[in-house]
Amino acid sequence: MFLNDDFLLNNEWSKKLYHTYAKKQPIIDYHCHLSAKDVYENRQYENLTKIWLNSDGAGDHYKWRLMRANGVDENLISGNGDDYQKFLAFVKTLEKAIGNPIYEWSHLELKRYFGIDMLITEKNAKAIWEKANALLATEEYRARNLLKKMNVVAVATTDDPADDLKYHKLLQAEEGKNTFKVYPTFRPDRAMQIQNENFLEYVHTLEKVVGFKIDGLKAFQRALEERVGYFKNVGCFIADHGLNTFHFTQYKPRDIEIIFANKMAGKVITDEDAVLYLSFMQIFFMKLYKHFNMTMQMHMNVFRNASAVNFKKIGVDAGFDSVGDQASLGRELLKLYSYAQEINAFPKSIWYTLNPNDLLVLATLMQSFQGEVKQRIQLGSAWWFSDSYHGMREQMTILASQSLFGNFVGMLTDSRSLLSYTRHEYFRRVLCGLVGEWVEAGRLPEDEEYLGKIISNICYYNAKEYFSL
Amino acid sequence: MFLNDDFLLNNEWSKKLYHTYAKKQPIIDYHCHLSAKDVYENRQYENLTKIWLNSDGAGDHYKWRLMRANGVDENLISGNGDDYQKFLAFVKTLEKAIGNPIYEWSHLELKRYFGIDMLITEKNAKAIWEKANALLATEEYRARNLLKKMNVVAVATTDDPADDLKYHKLLQAEEGKNTFKVYPTFRPDRAMQIQNENFLEYVHTLEKVVGFKIDGLKAFQRALEERVGYFKNVGCFIADHGLNTFHFTQYKPRDIEIIFANKMAGKVITDEDAVLYLSFMQIFFMKLYKHFNMTMQMHMNVFRNASAVNFKKIGVDAGFDSVGDQASLGRELLKLYSYAQEINAFPKSIWYTLNPNDLLVLATLMQSFQGEVKQRIQLGSAWWFSDSYHGMREQMTILASQSLFGNFVGMLTDSRSLLSYTRHEYFRRVLCGLVGEWVEAGRLPEDEEYLGKIISNICYYNAKEYFSL
Amino acid sequence: MFLNDDFLLNNEWSKKLYHTYAKKQPIIDYHCHLSAKDVYENRQYENLTKIWLNSDGAGDHYKWRLMRANGVDENLISGNGDDYQKFLAFVKTLEKAIGNPIYEWSHLELKRYFGIDMLITEKNAKAIWEKANALLATEEYRARNLLKKMNVVAVATTDDPADDLKYHKLLQAEEGKNTFKVYPTFRPDRAMQIQNENFLEYVHTLEKVVGFKIDGLKAFQRALEERVGYFKNVGCFIADHGLNTFHFTQYKPRDIEIIFANKMAGKVITDEDAVLYLSFMQIFFMKLYKHFNMTMQMHMNVFRNASAVNFKKIGVDAGFDSVGDQASLGRELLKLYSYAQEINAFPKSIWYTLNPNDLLVLATLMQSFQGEVKQRIQLGSAWWFSDSYHGMREQMTILASQSLFGNFVGMLTDSRSLLSYTRHEYFRRVLCGLVGEWVEAGRLPEDEEYLGKIISNICYYNAKEYFSL
Repeated sequence: MFLNDDFLLNNEWSKKLYHTYAKKQPIIDYHCHLSAKDVYENRQYENLTKIWLNSDGAGDHYKWRLMRANGVDENLISGNGDDYQKFLAFVKTLEKAIGNPIYEWSHLELKRYFGIDMLITEKNAKAIWEKANALLATEEYRARNLLKKMNVVAVATTDDPADDLKYHKLLQAEEGKNTFKVYPTFRPDRAMQIQNENFLEYVHTLEKVVGFKIDGLKAFQRALEERVGYFKNVGCFIADHGLNTFHFTQYKPRDIEIIFANKMAGKVITDEDAVLYLSFMQIFFMKLYKHFNMTMQMHMNVFRNASAVNFKKIGVDAGFDSVGDQASLGRELLKLYSYAQEINAFPKSIWYTLNPNDLLVLATLMQSFQGEVKQRIQLGSAWWFSDSYHGMREQMTILASQSLFGNFVGMLTDSRSLLSYTRHEYFRRVLCGLVGEWVEAGRLPEDEEYLGKIISNICYYNAKEYFSL
Repeated sequence: MFLNDDFLLNNEWSKKLYHTYAKKQPIIDYHCHLSAKDVYENRQYENLTKIWLNSDGAGDHYKWRLMRANGVDENLISGNGDDYQKFLAFVKTLEKAIGNPIYEWSHLELKRYFGIDMLITEKNAKAIWEKANALLATEEYRARNLLKKMNVVAVATTDDPADDLKYHKLLQAEEGKNTFKVYPTFRPDRAMQIQNENFLEYVHTLEKVVGFKIDGLKAFQRALEERVGYFKNVGCFIADHGLNTFHFTQYKPRDIEIIFANKMAGKVITDEDAVLYLSFMQIFFMKLYKHFNMTMQMHMNVFRNASAVNFKKIGVDAGFDSVGDQASLGRELLKLYSYAQEINAFPKSIWYTLNPNDLLVLATLMQSFQGEVKQRIQLGSAWWFSDSYHGMREQMTILASQSLFGNFVGMLTDSRSLLSYTRHEYFRRVLCGLVGEWVEAGRLPEDEEYLGKIISNICYYNAKEYFSL
Repeated sequence: MFLNDDFLLNNEWSKKLYHTYAKKQPIIDYHCHLSAKDVYENRQYENLTKIWLNSDGAGDHYKWRLMRANGVDENLISGNGDDYQKFLAFVKTLEKAIGNPIYEWSHLELKRYFGIDMLITEKNAKAIWEKANALLATEEYRARNLLKKMNVVAVATTDDPADDLKYHKLLQAEEGKNTFKVYPTFRPDRAMQIQNENFLEYVHTLEKVVGFKIDGLKAFQRALEERVGYFKNVGCFIADHGLNTFHFTQYKPRDIEIIFANKMAGKVITDEDAVLYLSFMQIFFMKLYKHFNMTMQMHMNVFRNASAVNFKKIGVDAGFDSVGDQASLGRELLKLYSYAQEINAFPKSIWYTLNPNDLLVLATLMQSFQGEVKQRIQLGSAWWFSDSYHGMREQMTILASQSLFGNFVGMLTDSRSLLSYTRHEYFRRVLCGLVGEWVEAGRLPEDEEYLGKIISNICYYNAKEYFSL
């Protein structure tokens, strides 16, 4: 039964809904970390390790963490070890990983992309390595063809406001040549992190990009406003804020000017001032997004770079992040959105939390701010460490129980890898499995047309409509 | 299978337990928000919208929230729109609501009360509207007959201490004429909210009711004590505290007198003083309830009126509340009950939390305060946003795993609507489904008499005994 | 089906895995509260109450709590009531406890240890009492034979640093005579609780044990270091910290000396100073454990002795503890481990939380600190109030989804009773049930040899290897 045609589909209704409606829908990946450059240059990958485990600058930190738990030498994880040895160390790790989404993802990726049906075990390692590498050497396994192969029609990458979006523009210039579109996402995290030691450096980077001097908060805001407009012109329909923890406090704009000036003068910014600044900037961006009709994503409740030793040694996005435990997330969002609503600074929003304890709080809070626009706030898909069979079911169950599941914009990969599109298949199976169970329990009518339409909408049409694609 | 005889009953044991034991039990609705006036006057409802969506002064805010999420104009929600258009907007919303309890409740209500078996869709809207309205025009669909139809034998409404309970007394005077009894519940929230701008107005209201001057805390306490006695004389067996968040601090009675005097003098009450006052009043009421042998309900962890804009425009209980995230709820209750126990101010209690993250904390904490009386503290049924298939199973699983499920007082509607009694059917199905699963898993003996008795107790007899009805 | 051969095994794969692989594995109980004295002296139990409910000094507080919830007189719980009446009061309570692990445990214990297949009901009480007591009077039911009967090969008790481990040493001297080994666990809680009124008394106790004067922090540390060495020599491989709540703050060693001196001088220690002291001691012990290659267990998020009245009357470990709600547990552990890693004070660790809301936070946080050693940090088995069907599945699902389930060290009893070893059977059934479900859902290959090996490892071999037994 392992990963067969009906895996995760535990009754007749789930099979019918998946095979007739979900499977065939194109993929809109409205949030990921793919490289527009790789896509434009139609990158070819040297071997399976390079595309799967440890690409230059963008390794798969989900897999790295597992390898560390198995005591693998860091040299074979983020280091300069031999590519085959790295692959082998991962294979041996994966044998221990039953019940982990990476176990299923990895097998599914080999199966769907490479037609490899072998179990990932030490015994099969050599054969898998050779078969995958042979395919990776062909034209069919270059970046663009991998997107086409998976029926991906739209991708939104994640980009800094200072980015020139060169590759997005080059891809746009090819209009009609590709089976997919690549959009940028406006992610201004660096502009928000005023306590960061690189903040001034970032202000200077931005200065060069916009071509005028940033001598205070107002100029900084003008620069960012210009960049949102620039992104919008390159097709950007979505922003993304990586907030980790989040607190909202009422501020006086004049105080924020002083805080910004202090930072420019090299002073240390206190935690209180950082909260004031973040609150101000959050509202500032929300006004902009509303103006430009862009949806704002918020990614919340994360501990980043937990291990100081490894942060120094290996850096960010290397597998040292975890689920946050900020207890007051709902209360802070309540303050932010209540104020945003009062001053008419309320864009369409998607709330993601890394901690599923927040899901019901967020799902009910967002319902207190709905209105005027269809599903003005969405509860984001199960994210990162929750992107599992169990986590997806939990997110869907709670979303459905509190809001309109039929309006859900569904899945995104959030991935750095071109091999992650099978996660959409996984999501669709979980979705159909769950809805099928509801039918079996007598909680939904046995009306195929009706349910099929809802499934198709969640898989594809809702995102297309919500983001006006 | 949709809502058929066996819906939610997923094995033979659950079917047997439901059909033989649970189904036939009368309903004791020991906590709801029905209007005693409507019952006494035997209200007739003009149309389906009036009884189902938007009655004067008491709309169904569960449904309103869903409609807002679908972008429906507020005029068709809480406003003065046309009743059929309101109904139609709800129908179109409901089509998106698969997996939401309101989807199942709505269909079940039409089916059980009106014998309407149609799916609630735009296509069927007109037919449903006409059939339901025709029935609502008949004698059988007046308030009292609706209670009778659902086998309701006892209802406890929710009432302010200043209420004269006129309609409760009139109903009592009819003793023997009705198939049900209507009891008041003592809910002194307004007496606890000392920071509220209407607090003084409330003190004056109370002054008029008791007929003596309230010139300080002691007189205020005397007035409230008198009201508890008055309620008790009208059959009241239960109190209810809507606490939202809750903190307990040790106080000196003399300080509370000063805080009260400050409020009377028009001063602003600080958050610290409000906590002191609330702690004092909480203990004051607990002593009274113990004296009068009344059970105290506590409803906790709620964010009320999240949207400032809509609170101003539409008011309270209009669909802008959500699940709270007070992290220290358990610790605060621990302090309250440990102290209450020391000074012998410990009535029977039912703890409800809106946030299921608290359930295990509360279920284990209450076990630290059991003793002397059978199930001195109860873990309240899944409440409000948790009143769903998933939420009920969670509450029952946790309650059973930590305490004596066989002593559970079971379901209440917490509803403003006479059409909500099918929620008891829903609860009983979930209950039997769960217990049936335990039998199937080999976790319970296949002893029908034994299990049937427990089911009957949870559905009816436990509440009857616990509240001495 | 009740507790039959296949109970909790809900499909063919779970049956195959349990009966072929899990069932036969020996038991390593690496954390419990058994008395080494009782084992050495090969204690015989007077009657079922003495071994099951209310042994001298070590009652079963799980059962006591349930009895209190049923309103049983305290004299029949922790008091001096008649043993049969106590038993009978428990039986009547248990009849209400469907869905509670104690319901299943109790029946399983009677079945596996005594061959008693009767339902525990008032009707059967006398017969059960007589049959069990007759068996308890035989040689086969003395302490050592009970361990042998359950195939227990290793037990780690829980011991204070000041303990002379007399009975552990006597048991060791019998090497080869027994079918099991009994190891001590180093549990220095009393050395950490500087606000405790008995702290000075404890320092003096330790003074006598080590034979030198403890005139300050350094001497205190030297004494504890000596005791860790002493324990190590008696075979100790594991430590245990009962932390309840936990906060970590950076400290200056000189300040800790002052705090300690203040305590010795009889001064009151503030909460802030207690946190500093605890942070320092935590790091101090972690260095020692790393040096001695001992694994550190941390038991976290507990409210102890909630009821002040009953704490005074009945004392500790008497059924007045509950699940804690410390919200920042993850953040505090992050600080502790990040610092410990920097100064190379990082022993193998097992993290237990009593609040399942923490599980995903801990499971992902531990992954941020893995490396070098295989499964350097383990997520501890479902503990205490979570040691239930539901709780175990939750712990296993989360562990598997975030780390390497194949490296899990599995179950321990944490019990004071020799009759608790059926909990290992229960755990193994839940384990096989879950893995079997994964196979059925198509999430795991149908490879019996592969899965059987993982199951055997989790039941036995992983603990053997992890603790070098």
